[in-house]
Amino acid sequence: MFALNFSVNKMQNRITSLFNIQYPIIQGGMVWCSGWRLASAVSNAGGLGLLGAGSMHPEVLRGHIQKTKQATQKPFGVNVPLMYPQIEELMAIIIREKVPIVFTSAGNPELWTQKLKDAGITVVHVVSNSRFAIKSKETGVDALVAEGFEAGGHNGREETTTLCLVPQIRKAVDLPLIAAGGIGSGQAMAAMFALGAEGVQLGSRFAASVESSAHEAFKQQIVLAKEGSTHLSLKKLVPVRLLENPFYQKVNELEQNGASVEKLKELLGKGRAKKGMFEGDLEQGELEIGQVSASIHSIQPVQSIMNELVSEFNATMKSISSIQW
Amino acid sequence: MFALNFSVNKMQNRITSLFNIQYPIIQGGMVWCSGWRLASAVSNAGGLGLLGAGSMHPEVLRGHIQKTKQATQKPFGVNVPLMYPQIEELMAIIIREKVPIVFTSAGNPELWTQKLKDAGITVVHVVSNSRFAIKSKETGVDALVAEGFEAGGHNGREETTTLCLVPQIRKAVDLPLIAAGGIGSGQAMAAMFALGAEGVQLGSRFAASVESSAHEAFKQQIVLAKEGSTHLSLKKLVPVRLLENPFYQKVNELEQNGASVEKLKELLGKGRAKKGMFEGDLEQGELEIGQVSASIHSIQPVQSIMNELVSEFNATMKSISSIQW
Repeated sequence: MFALNFSVNKMQNRITSLFNIQYPIIQGGMVWCSGWRLASAVSNAGGLGLLGAGSMHPEVLRGHIQKTKQATQKPFGVNVPLMYPQIEELMAIIIREKVPIVFTSAGNPELWTQKLKDAGITVVHVVSNSRFAIKSKETGVDALVAEGFEAGGHNGREETTTLCLVPQIRKAVDLPLIAAGGIGSGQAMAAMFALGAEGVQLGSRFAASVESSAHEAFKQQIVLAKEGSTHLSLKKLVPVRLLENPFYQKVNELEQNGASVEKLKELLGKGRAKKGMFEGDLEQGELEIGQVSASIHSIQPVQSIMNELVSEFNATMKSISSIQW
Repeated sequence: MFALNFSVNKMQNRITSLFNIQYPIIQGGMVWCSGWRLASAVSNAGGLGLLGAGSMHPEVLRGHIQKTKQATQKPFGVNVPLMYPQIEELMAIIIREKVPIVFTSAGNPELWTQKLKDAGITVVHVVSNSRFAIKSKETGVDALVAEGFEAGGHNGREETTTLCLVPQIRKAVDLPLIAAGGIGSGQAMAAMFALGAEGVQLGSRFAASVESSAHEAFKQQIVLAKEGSTHLSLKKLVPVRLLENPFYQKVNELEQNGASVEKLKELLGKGRAKKGMFEGDLEQGELEIGQVSASIHSIQPVQSIMNELVSEFNATMKSISSIQW
């Protein structure tokens, strides 16, 4: 006879099977926060760690991929914003380095999905509405991330929240589905499973982890963030969720007065996100983070975040499972 | 011995006990949609129906209260926006007519909570952040509604989504908690219970019901709404979520060009909501509805909506209850 508790932690679903991971918890690939240290720590803890290629020159990404491979034997991936300028070079490195999983975002997956799949790579695309979900499926992606309005950084134009978006995508396509935006706890993870998601992607919580490459001053700002501290901003360019700071205040002032695209581009300039998130310039830098930052109260090691997520999830499922009306 | 299945549909929690109802499902009190027909139908179906006093002259409300009492023996309530101009007169009628439950919204609950409670009325306040939740508790309210960014009609300034808001309020106060905004299905209801809510309030789904007093043309627009069809608008006045139509387009154009508060007030004028929602002027009227309208595909009787919500909720709980990582 097998012991009954033999199966603990051996549960599988389509997301854990697809990535060959223990927990259906993905660390979002973020600019300036998610290098090899963070990605390998998440993968080592049983989730899926993603390098954020959006803020890396191709050669820098190659270095991070190689270091990640040294730091973990587990699967990991790279997030590639499809508007990346030297994307050919970047993708060539990803393929040559045999990265097993690529998440694409911020663009049309048509051009790259099949090329990546031909190289044996598992491809996931991030969407913010069900129209793009259906298109993505047609390009052959293996899974989808449905990311809502509350997410940090670049965001959809339709402002559909995670609560409204996940059921829409679930209904539109039958692919394995990862929910993102506003998720920072095992309770929220359980809520996403109730909506039909099979995995969750967390950005903000991991941006504030010990292993995140974000500047310490930015991590402290995440911990200090309150309800209402983030705003979806720069909507006339690409909508991006930012933490309130003097730079945001300037953007907001311009926007309230109906500033043109050109005016906003001029203010934004270049390198704002690096300045804020990586170099810790809290005044003039761009600080990308999600609404859920209001629920983040300490900078924790990845392993402790993962332990909390899983135990909160299990406790939540146990406590609500007896509710039947 | 008692039969084991005796307890089916006899489940209680703090919300059902507080209101003495069968299911922890509240029909939000809405302007121009929720008169006596809708409120009594929801109460008769085992939920809690609310009259929307915001669009009723005091004498009109009195009529609706009396008709509701004739149409149901079950508990019902009234939603009162606290910025209502003749609020003294309105509250006097509510107290004289012995309405058992009042939901207050859009204002400071300090002035009215104790007066209503002294009259034996159960008082619930609608909040969009935890600061107001704590303040509301201090005024002595019996329960709270936490309403997120995706909700239709008047909305909070901080744009916190339901997924992020409910856990914040849950943590801030220990009162019975009702989640609102973006909820239109039993799956979403289950998700809210995972976040710690003990009940849900639905507006849009009931606005599109057979018993709703909304104009048929408006109901059809709700059914036709897609992802991205609603927008949080008029933020320089009081933020309100509207369905896209020629009136919204005019507001948006002004806002994109940095229009002043005065300009926006001038465009808004008076009676826009009545014109759109009650009289069915789809061009020039204001059509208030939530993001979840994208998931509403038919105009159903209240009883059928309630049946669906409860059976979806139970099926969801059953299907996710075995998930443990």
